Amino acid sequence: MAKVLIIGAGGVGRVVVQKCASLPEVFSEILLASRTKSKCDVIAEEVGQGRVKTAQLDADNVSETVALINEFKPFMVINVALPYQDLAIMDACLETGVHYLDTANYEPKDEAKFEYKWQWAYQDKFKEKGLMAVLGCGFDPGVTSIFTARAAKHHFDEIQYLDIVDCNAGDHGKAFATNFNPEINIREITQKGKYYEDGKWIETEPHEIHKDLNYPNIGPKRSYLIYHEELESLVKNFPSIKRARFWMTFGEEYLTHLRVIQNIGMARIDPVKFKGVEIVPLEFLKAVLPDPGELGENYSGETSIGCRIRGIKDGEEQTYYIWNNCKHEEAYKETGAQGVSYTTGVPAMIGAKMMIEGKWNGEGVFNVEEFDPDPFLTDLAEFGLPWHEKLNAEIEL
Amino acid sequence: MAKVLIIGAGGVGRVVVQKCASLPEVFSEILLASRTKSKCDVIAEEVGQGRVKTAQLDADNVSETVALINEFKPFMVINVALPYQDLAIMDACLETGVHYLDTANYEPKDEAKFEYKWQWAYQDKFKEKGLMAVLGCGFDPGVTSIFTARAAKHHFDEIQYLDIVDCNAGDHGKAFATNFNPEINIREITQKGKYYEDGKWIETEPHEIHKDLNYPNIGPKRSYLIYHEELESLVKNFPSIKRARFWMTFGEEYLTHLRVIQNIGMARIDPVKFKGVEIVPLEFLKAVLPDPGELGENYSGETSIGCRIRGIKDGEEQTYYIWNNCKHEEAYKETGAQGVSYTTGVPAMIGAKMMIEGKWNGEGVFNVEEFDPDPFLTDLAEFGLPWHEKLNAEIEL
Repeated sequence: MAKVLIIGAGGVGRVVVQKCASLPEVFSEILLASRTKSKCDVIAEEVGQGRVKTAQLDADNVSETVALINEFKPFMVINVALPYQDLAIMDACLETGVHYLDTANYEPKDEAKFEYKWQWAYQDKFKEKGLMAVLGCGFDPGVTSIFTARAAKHHFDEIQYLDIVDCNAGDHGKAFATNFNPEINIREITQKGKYYEDGKWIETEPHEIHKDLNYPNIGPKRSYLIYHEELESLVKNFPSIKRARFWMTFGEEYLTHLRVIQNIGMARIDPVKFKGVEIVPLEFLKAVLPDPGELGENYSGETSIGCRIRGIKDGEEQTYYIWNNCKHEEAYKETGAQGVSYTTGVPAMIGAKMMIEGKWNGEGVFNVEEFDPDPFLTDLAEFGLPWHEKLNAEIEL
Repeated sequence: MAKVLIIGAGGVGRVVVQKCASLPEVFSEILLASRTKSKCDVIAEEVGQGRVKTAQLDADNVSETVALINEFKPFMVINVALPYQDLAIMDACLETGVHYLDTANYEPKDEAKFEYKWQWAYQDKFKEKGLMAVLGCGFDPGVTSIFTARAAKHHFDEIQYLDIVDCNAGDHGKAFATNFNPEINIREITQKGKYYEDGKWIETEPHEIHKDLNYPNIGPKRSYLIYHEELESLVKNFPSIKRARFWMTFGEEYLTHLRVIQNIGMARIDPVKFKGVEIVPLEFLKAVLPDPGELGENYSGETSIGCRIRGIKDGEEQTYYIWNNCKHEEAYKETGAQGVSYTTGVPAMIGAKMMIEGKWNGEGVFNVEEFDPDPFLTDLAEFGLPWHEKLNAEIEL
């Protein structure tokens, strides 16, 4: 039983808070902090019964976070704020001696890179302090890595081919909206594609490679090869992997909108001087697009995210598919958040639960596939994200 | 021979200055003023020989404009600044006793209206002071209205059906750019369509009505019914008109970009609070889009703008088509500006020439179709925009 500080009051924060609040035997006290305290207050009020305390916090400011941690004295911080803020929050954890967990890797503001190097560089610092930092414990990265760990533990001697497939077949009824922070989403999707093969990273033009893939309960959907951050840690932690790729579905209208956003210069992340103020076009665009945290109502359809794996078991070729499907409507009914927030928030809560219960243990900086997948996946199914697996699956890839 | 103050140093300003500078027997001295003096200096240097003086001016500020006019003492102001600034510049003209000419009607900043009412309300003030204000003397409005006046003077007893057709079959090689101020362009094109029929204005959804029209030397192009400001004054000044419409060509890609710009909220003209500053999305978009004044290089193809008219002459039905075609490349070679700037700037110079030479005369506020079209059209052809006419034309509409 432990106290947690949750930083970030967007759609994911809402899910994490609600899920933690429902388990008082694990999460004894909850403090929710964000730049905008009123957003925390709305979530706290939804939970009710005084379960959740709230605070105003500028998480870019290490000393502010240090002061808040010293006052509240949590066991750990669950960081679901902006990826730009990861390092500042890790610094505050180191200074105050509390554990750390996040759902997306650090990214510098001025370049769209998705690399672990900045956070992996904290390895020795966390070790020295006897602290644990768990990186990327959402759905992807997060559950996808733990699915891979399960495959390695139970079904393969050697994982050779890994394809992570991420389908959102939902309809939010808006002309255009992103399912999570539009700034991060657009950065991620407009960058070049990249996959791993035979020890090398191979770059593609954005959306150059696509296939129609069949998703359970959904059917065929055009899926595009993009780069996604968990590929970097997975090929490091499972060195038998010969090829690792990530596929995501996009509708044609969505891609048209992205293309235009780039053409008109609104995806730029370098500042433009306007009325004497430096303004980053993509940040301003975020301010005018619909808030992904508000997309839940009327969001229909479902997501399907999983891993399709080929490799060797007992000298024979083995294929394996492990996945979760999540219905936007049910996620909204339960938490007031849509499916993409739900599938990110639930794993974050369970990762924190693993740390508090000592089922995940260690000193230093970890990716989630380094831990035992079994207790995590048992809880995942119990707390809202049931998963399915199939050996000798027809995996198309 | 007279001195002129030209306000506005965009693509149109560049053309007006060059054309005026080439006629020292009409325009004895030229002062070019703009918010950004360096833009004026670039144009003045291109003209050379010290023909053009320059000044910094915030034309929103009436007393600044009054001071500049009192110092320079021009015969008239040629206003090719932003339409929002028309009234402030007219006020300065009234206060200092100088004549006025512009190329686009006043529009309030906070609503996309294209109506003459604000400027027509200056009628008595200009009359009382014995001054002349000429409104909308670019190509459209401007030449299109004078084409209609020519039709009325020489070829019709009664104009009944008027279709103004505006085709830009040019290619600037950019993914997306507007041909004049993007703020005004996007406001104009994203508004509802409107046309005049049997004494009433009929509104349409944006781009609801379209036809493939044939343009001389270009061929068929999809043309959309939009509202354009000269329709308002033309149906007032030619009351025999039963129906008046305006058609403009747009490519599919252009419309896709416009649709997305609206979907993502970047066409909004109400301010959004961002980093403590009030920012109008459309104004910010203008800052990141290509500068239309810089589109000239590599701009190929041509424009074709004209009037297709049906009516009665000597008791018989008459049809008539009058038009100008302008090649972007030739406009650029002559002035360093593309065709859309060229076709707006040349008529502004000629309108000013008409006023200075006393060929257009009067006290009060005027639309260009109220004057004698003949001397204007003679000069138009001589100074770069030759036009063509055809009686009994196959006018498709």
